[in-house]
Amino acid sequence: MIERIGCIGGGQLGQMITQAALPLGFKVEVIDPVEFCPAAQAGASQIQAELNDSQAIVRLGESNDVVTWEIEHIPTTVLGELVANGIDVEPNFETLLCIQDKLTQKKLLQSAGVPVAPFSEVLNEDAFLGGGPYVVKTRKGGFDGRGNFMVDHINPQLIADHFFDQPVYVEQVVAFEKEIAVIAARDKVGNIVSYPAVETVHNNSICNMVISPAEVPEDIIDEANQIANTVMGLFHGAGVFAIEMFVVNGKVLVNEVAPRVHNSGHHTIEANQTSQFEQHIRAISGMPLGDTSPRSPAAVMINILGNRSEVLSREGLNRVLAMPDTHPHFYGKSSRPARKIGHITVLAETADQAKLMAVQARQELYI
Amino acid sequence: MIERIGCIGGGQLGQMITQAALPLGFKVEVIDPVEFCPAAQAGASQIQAELNDSQAIVRLGESNDVVTWEIEHIPTTVLGELVANGIDVEPNFETLLCIQDKLTQKKLLQSAGVPVAPFSEVLNEDAFLGGGPYVVKTRKGGFDGRGNFMVDHINPQLIADHFFDQPVYVEQVVAFEKEIAVIAARDKVGNIVSYPAVETVHNNSICNMVISPAEVPEDIIDEANQIANTVMGLFHGAGVFAIEMFVVNGKVLVNEVAPRVHNSGHHTIEANQTSQFEQHIRAISGMPLGDTSPRSPAAVMINILGNRSEVLSREGLNRVLAMPDTHPHFYGKSSRPARKIGHITVLAETADQAKLMAVQARQELYI
Repeated sequence: MIERIGCIGGGQLGQMITQAALPLGFKVEVIDPVEFCPAAQAGASQIQAELNDSQAIVRLGESNDVVTWEIEHIPTTVLGELVANGIDVEPNFETLLCIQDKLTQKKLLQSAGVPVAPFSEVLNEDAFLGGGPYVVKTRKGGFDGRGNFMVDHINPQLIADHFFDQPVYVEQVVAFEKEIAVIAARDKVGNIVSYPAVETVHNNSICNMVISPAEVPEDIIDEANQIANTVMGLFHGAGVFAIEMFVVNGKVLVNEVAPRVHNSGHHTIEANQTSQFEQHIRAISGMPLGDTSPRSPAAVMINILGNRSEVLSREGLNRVLAMPDTHPHFYGKSSRPARKIGHITVLAETADQAKLMAVQARQELYI
Repeated sequence: MIERIGCIGGGQLGQMITQAALPLGFKVEVIDPVEFCPAAQAGASQIQAELNDSQAIVRLGESNDVVTWEIEHIPTTVLGELVANGIDVEPNFETLLCIQDKLTQKKLLQSAGVPVAPFSEVLNEDAFLGGGPYVVKTRKGGFDGRGNFMVDHINPQLIADHFFDQPVYVEQVVAFEKEIAVIAARDKVGNIVSYPAVETVHNNSICNMVISPAEVPEDIIDEANQIANTVMGLFHGAGVFAIEMFVVNGKVLVNEVAPRVHNSGHHTIEANQTSQFEQHIRAISGMPLGDTSPRSPAAVMINILGNRSEVLSREGLNRVLAMPDTHPHFYGKSSRPARKIGHITVLAETADQAKLMAVQARQELYI
């Protein structure tokens, strides 16, 4: 019986996991280097340590019934040792190992017939039909666009210099019409559910806005769901997965897969019967998956980023709270430019209405 | 600007206040005698002290921007001193003083023309038309039926012996058709909102089930709302109030008023746009009140009480979580017979459906 959940990472994702876990009767412990991290502020106990601290991860495994994570950039060797010692690690650590290396991930997807953007391990334009621009990506450790390098031409020396000889690979930049994502979850006996596909809007590679449901034709939705199902078949373990996709010329390509709760699912707290955070708890603890049905015709989530002045307006918050079905979430993080410090979810009758309100709401917060 | 909220009491109500406060950017501190009380488990800092510890209350006032409570049985003298020292105490402490003494409360309601059950300060049957049964109530400190004594005849000596000479008063027991309640909230500038009236079902004087909306004729709803408005006019201060009422011969009588978030409003977490807990935070911190609209045609909340075996069934919880739109909440309290250790909220198309599911869900939990 699972009562104690250990989570590697105690940022906003770990915080929202904690908030979902407590009412179901679980205790949560997190590893995080930041003193009194967001998850601890919501009642998790905290091992204050770096996320790559193997000893801390061993301790986490010893004192909890299941170990999970809020971020994929964590050491896998020690996770393998936990598994070898009979500790439940969810989702599967070999899946994590594959996903961590974006090139290995891409190869697996391609070998299974999942459509992906053209990519090459070899730093040579001959590997591609058509021309640039290209995006060079670090194989490991990148997120929110960090670790990505846009180039018009592939110049191996320039790339080596830029990345200090880290392992990289190249993707052809695709001119997508939209970015969409499907959040899916698998329970311990293999059942899979998914949330309605969402549209994600990025600014400077950082998720800015999520629109649920995605405003794309029905056949694109069907294709996205089929692809999401195929992808879930390639990866193992219980928990929530986010499958990020591009819509290119009316076709769906997979961009990347995250084996964890995800920014593109925050709206589910208010907008769906079961939030992605409760879903993850259900999945990793052997409970049945929850209904993913939406509670409103449309929902929009917009991220609040730290701003230069580092000041949010309290009067602005008052105006936000006067807006119908508008739900600000602050994570208790100090403000830094481009840092995600909160989000706002708006539920409305139409996506256009929700988008307008979300943009207005966020604007109110900045002085 | 209010950033830190002090709450006297850190049980389940304080816990749910804390859970609602954190995403809005507030810090919560509670006073509670229980080590690692429910509110602390959800991230509140805790002053471990009895609720009547004046020094602890002074400390709470010094370190927070506003002081509120989850229970009305707390010392008022020290609250008056806080107010005299310019500390924001919400709702009004004189209102608390009046409500704490059930006889004073009843007299105020009666003097304002609010219909109440016949009552008397004098322990004499001549004070009543018709006969018993009567319920003798302690003027102060009773809750969940504790402090109530049912008698067929008023025998002053028997009453004095039963209550060890505590101050009491007598109410004629009314044969009500239903019990209903209205949760209302007032902000700092005097705006008032209320939630749709609910039906409350008590077993052994402990709230067992709440049905939203109340299944009573429209004119009863109107009367209940009018009475709730009148009652809100009699009491002062910002925050959530619960007005408990009887429906007797098609008329509405006020039973009692609680100047705090209340068991009859727990369903609002899932069932309404703004939960009573967030509403209380908004009210006491000078933010605008939130929309109280329901998210589903019907909702039912059922309390989970500690049972004799002190064991809840994990397999049962799994079956509960497989039910549609069914939301268990455990408070992290140790189990004791008749102690509220959690609740389940069910949202459904009809109240009958929700009731059946809620009863079934609770049954699943007990081994």
